[in-house]
Amino acid sequence: MVHNGIEYGDMQLISEAYFIMKNILKMDHAEMHKVFDKWNNEELDSYLMEISRDILAYKDEDGSPLLEKILDTAGQKGTGKWTSIEALEQGIPLTLVSEAVFARALSFQKEERVEASKILTGPEINFSGDKETFLENIKDALYSAKIVSYAQGYALIKAAAKEFDWNLNFGEIALMWRGGCIIRSVFLGDIKKAFEKNPDLNNLLLDDFFKSSVIKAQQGWRNVVSQAIKNGIPVPAMSSALEYFDGYRNGRLPANMLQAQRDYFGAHTYERIDKPRGEFFHTNWTGHGGTTTSNTYNA
Amino acid sequence: MVHNGIEYGDMQLISEAYFIMKNILKMDHAEMHKVFDKWNNEELDSYLMEISRDILAYKDEDGSPLLEKILDTAGQKGTGKWTSIEALEQGIPLTLVSEAVFARALSFQKEERVEASKILTGPEINFSGDKETFLENIKDALYSAKIVSYAQGYALIKAAAKEFDWNLNFGEIALMWRGGCIIRSVFLGDIKKAFEKNPDLNNLLLDDFFKSSVIKAQQGWRNVVSQAIKNGIPVPAMSSALEYFDGYRNGRLPANMLQAQRDYFGAHTYERIDKPRGEFFHTNWTGHGGTTTSNTYNA
Repeated sequence: MVHNGIEYGDMQLISEAYFIMKNILKMDHAEMHKVFDKWNNEELDSYLMEISRDILAYKDEDGSPLLEKILDTAGQKGTGKWTSIEALEQGIPLTLVSEAVFARALSFQKEERVEASKILTGPEINFSGDKETFLENIKDALYSAKIVSYAQGYALIKAAAKEFDWNLNFGEIALMWRGGCIIRSVFLGDIKKAFEKNPDLNNLLLDDFFKSSVIKAQQGWRNVVSQAIKNGIPVPAMSSALEYFDGYRNGRLPANMLQAQRDYFGAHTYERIDKPRGEFFHTNWTGHGGTTTSNTYNA
Repeated sequence: MVHNGIEYGDMQLISEAYFIMKNILKMDHAEMHKVFDKWNNEELDSYLMEISRDILAYKDEDGSPLLEKILDTAGQKGTGKWTSIEALEQGIPLTLVSEAVFARALSFQKEERVEASKILTGPEINFSGDKETFLENIKDALYSAKIVSYAQGYALIKAAAKEFDWNLNFGEIALMWRGGCIIRSVFLGDIKKAFEKNPDLNNLLLDDFFKSSVIKAQQGWRNVVSQAIKNGIPVPAMSSALEYFDGYRNGRLPANMLQAQRDYFGAHTYERIDKPRGEFFHTNWTGHGGTTTSNTYNA
């Protein structure tokens, strides 16, 4: 099932890369085809890159790119949704796949979007950087976000294996996915190597190879998401992956504020960084009578 | 239930605003308290702003801010999760609440994050803009993302009402939420007005008042998310809301690429923009023998 969710993520990421090239760099289909062809001979070599490359080159009867005649409302068979639901149940952040599932749902609201596009104005497209550099940045964003997506997917498998007491070989799973399914790629070989080196690897991002790749690529990735945001071009999968990366590598998140709020309105108590884990504290934040100030405690 | 999900979102948004002030603007707690106090007298006037303001001012026995002694691992009682699952079931993009739920899950992986923070390096904090302007931008981001969150939540209620044949008064729901619960705010009064003007409003973002607010605030919002990304500070709720906004107001999304891919590997067929809806097409993309090229069709 996780493999299906990852498929949703990979497809969404490729769509976002195409959308940025088309709308920010104003590239035509022959040019995009060439870039996809090049990338498909590098670390992004995969079945989905290959078919996207072919799709970019395919001409309709009138000689124009067929892709642009296709309606932008993506269907789904439910498999991506199930993966996201399982992640919510397990309490494992699977943000990229979930954004990909929601992106399909949003694409489905075609008529409403067309109406909204007349009402909700945004920024003009304005790109002034170097095109070749920015193309490299897009590749960095695609690659880094893909690493995050697989890291999140593997973390979900790991959590499920723990809960259901499965004994899984994570490297073999990568090998299995490489055999014939839609997400087959060179990338899965690197994942297999990572788990061969360390079968107990907690998160793919901590493997030497992927760590170095993502650290090297992060500046380009940040630039792409940031440019997309300034130009009003949606990249929900690339950006949610970056948000996860920045959250995961942050030893101190603002959840202390959440815990203070929960203790304030619901006396949920909190732990302290200067006391042992498992010791819980409550503060009378208002400083006067009563310990909480609200009548619903569901957060 | 949606009200509980929205609560998760509001709390996460406030936490992100605090985190940006603290890490990018390097503000101390007295200063943050003053800003929250000011904002609580403007359009962001709400119970959660009020208690966060108090929390920022609260001193521990040693005179330092208690907030910084609180462990950053947020608990949850499951109500946010249920809202996200329902959104996935209904096919309604509820991205902000889902990111807030996943942010709590990520906060819970404290030990792993502390380890990761030693391995996964990011950019140095580097802010050179005008502080007062940036503070206004943070307010814009908080307010705009909040509008998106409620727009998404109401869209979910609307979908559920349709499915289960409920006859709901959306303005009254806002009024009910204003009475005593944690998300009570001036904001809910504006939502009530929007539904009084148009009981069939499809999306809060299309109401005149909210539309003007968000169009006016979007530049600041874009600047905050973009600065956070450049500085490596996670803002998953603010950014997912912006991605939704840019997707929703886009009459043409890259889902045509998804549909082409699905037709290529699984013969799922597609609709065309130059043909009536409901007419489905399939292309033999490879141009030679057989119509599909993969053996798994689950995307």
